[in-house]
Amino acid sequence: MINEAKKKWEQERLAKVIERYPERKKEFHTDSGIPVERFYTPEDLKDWDYLEKLGFPGDYPFTRGVQPTMYRGRLWTMRQYAGFGTAKETNERFRFLLEQGQTGLSVAFDLPTQMGYDSDHPLAEGEVGRVGVAIDSLEDMEIVFEGIPLDKVSTSMTINAPAAILLAMYQAVGEKQGVDARKLRGTVQNDILKEYVARGTYIFPPEPSMRLVTDIFEYCSQNIPSWNTISISGYHIREAGSTAAQEIAFTLANGIAYVQAAIDKGLDVDEFAGRLSFFFNSHMNFFEEIAKFRAARRLWARIMKERFGAKKEKSMMLRFHTQTAGCSLTAQQPDNNIVRTAMEALAAVLGGTQSLHTNSKDEALALPSEEAVRTALRTQQIIAYETGVADTIDPLAGSYFIEKLTDEIEALAIDYIRKIDDMGGAVKAIENGFMQREIQESAYRYQREIESKERLVVGVNCFESEEEPPQNLLKVDPAIGESQKKRLEELKARRDGVAVSKALEKVEEAARGQDNLVVPIFHAVKSYATIGEICDVLRGVFGIYRPSQEL
Amino acid sequence: MINEAKKKWEQERLAKVIERYPERKKEFHTDSGIPVERFYTPEDLKDWDYLEKLGFPGDYPFTRGVQPTMYRGRLWTMRQYAGFGTAKETNERFRFLLEQGQTGLSVAFDLPTQMGYDSDHPLAEGEVGRVGVAIDSLEDMEIVFEGIPLDKVSTSMTINAPAAILLAMYQAVGEKQGVDARKLRGTVQNDILKEYVARGTYIFPPEPSMRLVTDIFEYCSQNIPSWNTISISGYHIREAGSTAAQEIAFTLANGIAYVQAAIDKGLDVDEFAGRLSFFFNSHMNFFEEIAKFRAARRLWARIMKERFGAKKEKSMMLRFHTQTAGCSLTAQQPDNNIVRTAMEALAAVLGGTQSLHTNSKDEALALPSEEAVRTALRTQQIIAYETGVADTIDPLAGSYFIEKLTDEIEALAIDYIRKIDDMGGAVKAIENGFMQREIQESAYRYQREIESKERLVVGVNCFESEEEPPQNLLKVDPAIGESQKKRLEELKARRDGVAVSKALEKVEEAARGQDNLVVPIFHAVKSYATIGEICDVLRGVFGIYRPSQEL
Repeated sequence: MINEAKKKWEQERLAKVIERYPERKKEFHTDSGIPVERFYTPEDLKDWDYLEKLGFPGDYPFTRGVQPTMYRGRLWTMRQYAGFGTAKETNERFRFLLEQGQTGLSVAFDLPTQMGYDSDHPLAEGEVGRVGVAIDSLEDMEIVFEGIPLDKVSTSMTINAPAAILLAMYQAVGEKQGVDARKLRGTVQNDILKEYVARGTYIFPPEPSMRLVTDIFEYCSQNIPSWNTISISGYHIREAGSTAAQEIAFTLANGIAYVQAAIDKGLDVDEFAGRLSFFFNSHMNFFEEIAKFRAARRLWARIMKERFGAKKEKSMMLRFHTQTAGCSLTAQQPDNNIVRTAMEALAAVLGGTQSLHTNSKDEALALPSEEAVRTALRTQQIIAYETGVADTIDPLAGSYFIEKLTDEIEALAIDYIRKIDDMGGAVKAIENGFMQREIQESAYRYQREIESKERLVVGVNCFESEEEPPQNLLKVDPAIGESQKKRLEELKARRDGVAVSKALEKVEEAARGQDNLVVPIFHAVKSYATIGEICDVLRGVFGIYRPSQEL
Repeated sequence: MINEAKKKWEQERLAKVIERYPERKKEFHTDSGIPVERFYTPEDLKDWDYLEKLGFPGDYPFTRGVQPTMYRGRLWTMRQYAGFGTAKETNERFRFLLEQGQTGLSVAFDLPTQMGYDSDHPLAEGEVGRVGVAIDSLEDMEIVFEGIPLDKVSTSMTINAPAAILLAMYQAVGEKQGVDARKLRGTVQNDILKEYVARGTYIFPPEPSMRLVTDIFEYCSQNIPSWNTISISGYHIREAGSTAAQEIAFTLANGIAYVQAAIDKGLDVDEFAGRLSFFFNSHMNFFEEIAKFRAARRLWARIMKERFGAKKEKSMMLRFHTQTAGCSLTAQQPDNNIVRTAMEALAAVLGGTQSLHTNSKDEALALPSEEAVRTALRTQQIIAYETGVADTIDPLAGSYFIEKLTDEIEALAIDYIRKIDDMGGAVKAIENGFMQREIQESAYRYQREIESKERLVVGVNCFESEEEPPQNLLKVDPAIGESQKKRLEELKARRDGVAVSKALEKVEEAARGQDNLVVPIFHAVKSYATIGEICDVLRGVFGIYRPSQEL
């Protein structure tokens, strides 16, 4: 009956209007290429079943969210990614953020740390403290968390290849503070697969890397049970130019690979799966992003239940952190970025995120200033406390458009995952360059759309203004490298060298054998062995990864 | 079946969680006091019929929007309210805004102009050019629109008691530019009832004021047929502290009074009703605002069809301008206002507004700077071009929450309108202070909630920061009053005094009789009679309004 009425409407009403006033585009579609219809009606959800597709909050398939009360119980964690320069500066920024009402910490590490080099390594030149804090040894971590009781905060660490080392350091800082490891809460990113796909801070080849990942799963399930052992990340895949559908497809495909590797190692799925977490991007296509988060939850729940036979509901829950899209920000007219970030943050909240980083308006230009970081955090607080959107769970449920889009984006992701399965799984799909090529094609299309002005970016290819260059950009002091080197030298002179050597030997032994690597690493960091030293040992045993030429 | 499953979920799942982790509040509700449930399901829309409640875009009851293609055809008009100081400064700001991509103009007048006083009147002291542009005579209007072809823009004028005079001046400027009055597009606010309720810039008592309003309806239907003859305004009612439900209830009640007055004057409803327009606020309670816009459209369509027997669809369409809520902005941490305005603007767009003013971040402090005005406009452009929300019509349709909220807010408004009908209509409900009291009570409740921190406002009663006072605020030059007086003196010396006197006599004659007043006013402004002179004539005939003590 609705469809008949619609036909009549199209003939009698629409036809005349369209003829005189054509629409702005011939076709509308989302960023993933899903067609966007003029409008949606109940007919678009004809064979759609509420209980099957949505269910209840905190219930399988978790489309409406992973907790029964969601933000009515507790708001998402407001977690601004931060860290730059020395451990001392980062400690100051963390204290500032906690004072401003931030509810979780998120540590950015500099490139040498992420690549497993100490600050005095030749490759570290010019990079020390630049994109994050420089950590060489446990001493630096002690300074980063000085005055911050680790049983009171939850901390996310964006670290991958050396994740075990930083996790061990965090546990060691806790130990010194007298905090039981069972009370530590937080996340290590520990997602090496997306490093090969998109981010590039890998060290070892895939096989030993996967072992390190699953060793962390095992170690945490026994020692730090409230820790999120991985943050399977679509964020960087999206930043590299993927579509929303590719973002969840490749992320969940990587997730499947980790779960399979852990099962292959002999772990029981319900022992570790409840501590897996995810990390997504929130980009500008507002409704597609909301649909993406909902689709990802439903799809992961099905994968865990049907494919891996998980029994515990916790194992099926896709819990995720979100960061607004850095790549959507523009150097032109930085205040516009406040608006973009606000839209993206709202989409993440309407999509049911567990924690959120909102980008600062000046991140496209420099290190974020305190003022800009504060506004970014205020964006979350305004959404949380002033808009009322956190007062009811999954408010868009039932919208013909949103539900249709959720189904469609899920279907696109399923197609991709099937393709990747056919190739032999995510590791293979990365080794043969499949994911990378798909992302490149999307990135190329996106760029071309901007150049042809088919896609408008305000201030960039439309509504440009002449402007003065911004003043007073925050830059990292280039002297940091020198002072960090000096401190490292002093540490090495001061520490018990014999103990360090012994501890490193234990790491090597474990690396050559089958024992869980995190155990000897924990002892090594407590002897003040450096990241570079530990990674060198592992490099010696595992070798380093070089991407094949064709990628 | 869903309800049974829900009961089971409540007992087996929710109960345990709630016990351990109580929700943030005992009860959640919208700003209008509508309870917000934990979540909504199809059961909440049980006897809800799609075709009856929503229908199709551009079709009765217009819930989904007034045009069949909505923003897929043409985006809303981006119309920033502006004007300050002299006509020349305002002309410069308008040209700046048009250059920046604004698509419609909106003129703010200073208080003396709004109250029908010339700049040399003792009561104008200190107010000339302060909250808007100072207009004394046609000469000033000519300067305001210099170099802006009136057949190319649409112009909204926030003017009420002297609306006929400013409309006549606009027509006269068009005439001088050689633009046929039939091609003039725009709006005069011309909504005197809400001035008595909330805004306070009335001059005459209700009866002659209503005559002026309906004279404009008649005049335009004959002379300026594409002009919106009134902008029935909830904006100021909301700014005065009403709830969302009161905003639409009182606005539509005022609308009913205007329609009835025009019918009583002998006009045919379908002759003038198609040119009525509305003006709403977009406040912070995101989903309630969206529901409000949709409910207002549906309710007005029913009123026009069922109560007034309108036959033309155009007569039933509620077309509206939106301004984001000035009262939601804070002097503290002005960048936060960019976020608030972005949320409010998004709600307006998701609610299907025809045009939109986004407030500048510094409006709570001073006259908006060019930079702040630009960011406000960019906010609209980012929503329009980057978020994709304009690509499908009424994207939230079908959401259990939104549809339920739309029904509920409509029901609240219907209750109010029934009460006002029982009092004898809006004019009576204003004269006896009913609307004013209801608004005051809501405003008081809102204020009390802020004081008790039951309602949080970021930067005001939570997350405060110590800050330096902002620098370089834009202020109107106090010398403007003097220079404006001088120009007025020169004009009076220059113009044909006899012609002015004759024209003013014609205005008086019409005021004493029944003829349409806009006709002699049009001749008077062309003779360069001033606003003060014309209003003095009308004051002499109509008297002035003094609110009764008890209000």
